[in-house]
Amino acid sequence: MLDVVIIGAGPAGMTAALYAARSDLSVLLLERGAPGGQMNNTAEVENYPGFDSIKGPELAMKFYEPLAKFGAKHEYGYVVDVVDRGDYKTVITEDKEYDTRVVIISTGASHRHLGVPGEEEFSGRGVSYCAVCDGAFFRNRELIVIGGGDSAVEEAIYLTQFATKVSIVHRRDELRAQKIIQDRAFRNEKIEFIWDSVVEEITGENLVNGVEVKNVKTGEKTHVQAQGVFIYVGLDPISEPFKNLGVTNENGWIPTDLNMKTSVPGVFAIGDVREKTLRQITTAVGEGGIAGQQAYLYLQDLQDKLAK
Amino acid sequence: MLDVVIIGAGPAGMTAALYAARSDLSVLLLERGAPGGQMNNTAEVENYPGFDSIKGPELAMKFYEPLAKFGAKHEYGYVVDVVDRGDYKTVITEDKEYDTRVVIISTGASHRHLGVPGEEEFSGRGVSYCAVCDGAFFRNRELIVIGGGDSAVEEAIYLTQFATKVSIVHRRDELRAQKIIQDRAFRNEKIEFIWDSVVEEITGENLVNGVEVKNVKTGEKTHVQAQGVFIYVGLDPISEPFKNLGVTNENGWIPTDLNMKTSVPGVFAIGDVREKTLRQITTAVGEGGIAGQQAYLYLQDLQDKLAK
Repeated sequence: MLDVVIIGAGPAGMTAALYAARSDLSVLLLERGAPGGQMNNTAEVENYPGFDSIKGPELAMKFYEPLAKFGAKHEYGYVVDVVDRGDYKTVITEDKEYDTRVVIISTGASHRHLGVPGEEEFSGRGVSYCAVCDGAFFRNRELIVIGGGDSAVEEAIYLTQFATKVSIVHRRDELRAQKIIQDRAFRNEKIEFIWDSVVEEITGENLVNGVEVKNVKTGEKTHVQAQGVFIYVGLDPISEPFKNLGVTNENGWIPTDLNMKTSVPGVFAIGDVREKTLRQITTAVGEGGIAGQQAYLYLQDLQDKLAK
Repeated sequence: MLDVVIIGAGPAGMTAALYAARSDLSVLLLERGAPGGQMNNTAEVENYPGFDSIKGPELAMKFYEPLAKFGAKHEYGYVVDVVDRGDYKTVITEDKEYDTRVVIISTGASHRHLGVPGEEEFSGRGVSYCAVCDGAFFRNRELIVIGGGDSAVEEAIYLTQFATKVSIVHRRDELRAQKIIQDRAFRNEKIEFIWDSVVEEITGENLVNGVEVKNVKTGEKTHVQAQGVFIYVGLDPISEPFKNLGVTNENGWIPTDLNMKTSVPGVFAIGDVREKTLRQITTAVGEGGIAGQQAYLYLQDLQDKLAK
């Protein structure tokens, strides 16, 4: 019987592992890819304190390396289900089952992609999915934002702090964003709208230099210059394996209290998969610390209960 | 008029400054000491991800240095009061006044000291005020915990994960801690109690080697061997200057919601001064990121309001 199984080795999961292992709990970190999560898709991180600027995959390794010293184990595992057996849980992967007292879910979220040529090629070299992370890299540049929901419009406004111009490309002729956010965008002189349009390609050489836009009503194609392209067509929680457990909300996010407790005792959720407003390495790390410590406290209470 | 004044340059305040400044807000960080807060009193930090192990003051400098690049200003200031003027606030120091739209309080907390010989001398070399931070440094050692409240007894139990023996020195013949925590401690074979006693001196050469204990009833003095001394005689929020503002609770801590908002619009609180359960660099950084971002969102709403 393990003390803690942590599902997902992004910054939240690795921090929870650090805290739980430093409290001398037996910790297994399951991950279906390389440790690091979204950090591995980030070219330059300059908003994680302690580092002026660092490449995401390098930061991921720095998170990962000290874990072994404290006895935290790491295995490959593609989790398909978690079963609550009361005082313990069974984590089921494609290949194996693990019994554990505590489960910490830190599987993250994935940005919906456009699936157009250039998107993957220029990811981190002009293509971004996070204005708060990357906006400050685009001072005095022209930017494209793709999408029409709250996130797209809010982040377009945010980006006007840096950019000379922000063009919102939206496939329809009106926005889905809340009225108050729309009004703000319409009033903002730096924001332009390219209505009824989709991006068919992101162009560039080493870095992005623009997008190929097609008007879906007229079929007309134009090339719009830009040094950065921010894609806001949706963010999906990676929470399918936890639906049976009953911890997800109607959109698949996992709500928790301030101590990262989900609706199931002994199951915690942290990082991007959690229902919250700001998804950053800083917040992931804060939540990871709390969950690691709460795992210890939960096990203390459980020992008392089982001793009776 | 400044956008944001941040009071206190510990890890929470510096992270808030990083986020607010990267959002192109005008940011002033006021501090009455050296930037770093409690990090400056920490010998080795090994629970801040990204660093295997780093000296606290060195980590503090790494937090501080990038701030100037984003235009965050730093001034000496001993804040004595903050006045809420509705759409702006006035931060009053001993020497100056600053008008600002947003105030972020990150003044931290201070551990009550025993005030005995050796306490300051061996701080970070065997004397600690934080078991979660430093417990893992004391594997297979004998430890002393001083105090009789919840924190003292909980942390003594926590330390038994590492130590061979933990002696709780308490000035009375019964504990103040909750019954359930007391029971746990009494059942724990590694915990011993030294009742009716106070520590008069912490002894050592380069590192701690023990404490001088005096029984307050008999006057008898004994030397107790230990390699670590954890002092839990109280933690006080540094919040006196914010009492007039009405954001503190009955014990001086500042309650906030999940977005770090206090009861006064435009005033946020983060880090150790906040009412919460876990006080760590990780949690400070998470809260700082949120407050920096929330400051931006608050200013967006305020601009709308003022434009009407």
